[in-house]
Amino acid sequence: MRQKMSDMVHRIQDEICDALKQIDGVEFRQDEWTREEGGGGRSRVFSGGKVFEKAGVNVSVVHGTLSPQAAKSMGGGHELRGADLDFFATGISLVLHPLNPMAPTVHANYRYFERGEGLKPGSWWFGGGADLTPCYLFEEDAIHFHRVHKEACERHEVADYDKFKKWCDDYFLIKHREERRGLGGIFFDDINDAPRDECFEFVKDCAESFLESYLPIINRRKDLEFSDGQKQWQQIRRGRYVEFNLVYDRGTTFGLTTNGRIESILMSLPLTSRWEYCHEVDDGSEEDRLVQLLRNPVDWA
Amino acid sequence: MRQKMSDMVHRIQDEICDALKQIDGVEFRQDEWTREEGGGGRSRVFSGGKVFEKAGVNVSVVHGTLSPQAAKSMGGGHELRGADLDFFATGISLVLHPLNPMAPTVHANYRYFERGEGLKPGSWWFGGGADLTPCYLFEEDAIHFHRVHKEACERHEVADYDKFKKWCDDYFLIKHREERRGLGGIFFDDINDAPRDECFEFVKDCAESFLESYLPIINRRKDLEFSDGQKQWQQIRRGRYVEFNLVYDRGTTFGLTTNGRIESILMSLPLTSRWEYCHEVDDGSEEDRLVQLLRNPVDWA
Repeated sequence: MRQKMSDMVHRIQDEICDALKQIDGVEFRQDEWTREEGGGGRSRVFSGGKVFEKAGVNVSVVHGTLSPQAAKSMGGGHELRGADLDFFATGISLVLHPLNPMAPTVHANYRYFERGEGLKPGSWWFGGGADLTPCYLFEEDAIHFHRVHKEACERHEVADYDKFKKWCDDYFLIKHREERRGLGGIFFDDINDAPRDECFEFVKDCAESFLESYLPIINRRKDLEFSDGQKQWQQIRRGRYVEFNLVYDRGTTFGLTTNGRIESILMSLPLTSRWEYCHEVDDGSEEDRLVQLLRNPVDWA
Repeated sequence: MRQKMSDMVHRIQDEICDALKQIDGVEFRQDEWTREEGGGGRSRVFSGGKVFEKAGVNVSVVHGTLSPQAAKSMGGGHELRGADLDFFATGISLVLHPLNPMAPTVHANYRYFERGEGLKPGSWWFGGGADLTPCYLFEEDAIHFHRVHKEACERHEVADYDKFKKWCDDYFLIKHREERRGLGGIFFDDINDAPRDECFEFVKDCAESFLESYLPIINRRKDLEFSDGQKQWQQIRRGRYVEFNLVYDRGTTFGLTTNGRIESILMSLPLTSRWEYCHEVDDGSEEDRLVQLLRNPVDWA
């Protein structure tokens, strides 16, 4: 499974980057890196193109020994100790921040994790998900994104869209703001209650569905006109993105405390962001409409 | 002491804001707020003026019951439990982010804390400090800032400049970057090993020294010429400021988990910031010179 998952995420990275290259009109920058404790990764970043302000697509295959702190910050396998702190992890993680405030940021991440040899029950699991973070609401975008992921879930017995949709809404809550980072999608962790191959097939299907979920959206929004005020609202929403990622995101916390490659971990941060003191949106405005949905998620699919 | 400290920080807030108004050419915005669990504060923020991109000076007087999580995140008094989770806190906190990249950001914070009635040994303490965060090094600024704080320490038996200087360098370490947020200053917590009045006199002296430590610096730098590249470097340094505050700062963490007033807590964040993938500075450049000092602090006083 280690090899199979690693091969899959590398292939998906190629496919996604090829598609992004077409849209963005530039080559990505690639960095292959190794990790002192074991393993490494391949980071690809787009910047300076027509469409994306900053877009990163990263794959990694790492192994080593978990610190107790890191072990605590992750889901699943909490009963494992001692030699079982050895771990293997491989996955793909991407965050695309478009220039145009009408075009949503998107994040996806699919990963496979093993503790020890990955033989004992509960010692291996899959995790992942994808979520959409617009600054302005286009209902058809939210519906499309959710539907594609719902359909992927429905093709696999191991998946439960309703559960994963709610999990996503719960996970991406910026607690101190009482609002979510975006309009959600799916999120799951500790998936291991089916044969390993069945779990893999589901995760593969999700990863392969990414382009279908996002390409129509970015193509519809990337060239829309926008005002300075709309650009500024985008910058404020990006500040919230930073708040979530640095304060709450488990992947970021895990990376920062396990000697991960900092530039790959923080690749998820936007190029620029903004914090205005006591920024408020006008009642009934487009900005307000979005914020209401970040406070009260709805069923898009 | 509760009243005495609260009066002092309100007076210092007035003095500092009067001085900033002169420099910045605009009025501050003031918000008086109350906290559901008890107490409140007075936040003042400058923005849109000639000199500061965003500058906040906040005082608060709050009381309530600590959550175990919040109790854990603070220094001192760890032996106290039960009814002693009641707390009282008052203090002043300021962060000034100038527009000009040649002018350093500055932060200062002075606070008094009690658990329970503040009668038992170890149930009250003072904390605070001030630190300077330039984007470009002017040695005379760093020397001046450190000397003023050293002199304040030397006027009080309870203070130990060398210890507080090192504490500051240690505290403001951005661990995942292996660099500090800025060039330091002083930092202290859990100050209670002298009569309460002596501790107060030291903290008051520091707070009263703030303007002397910073005004000459901002006046020298606020109108210097700068390039687009220098402005961009400032934005990258501001990204690091955000990383420190959201990931490591105890005051921020404490505030976010205790239902503090979010806008006052995050007032410390810069108006704008930037994350460039794999940004590197040229060897021997002014930017490099600063980064070396963030990695290897020196004795400025």
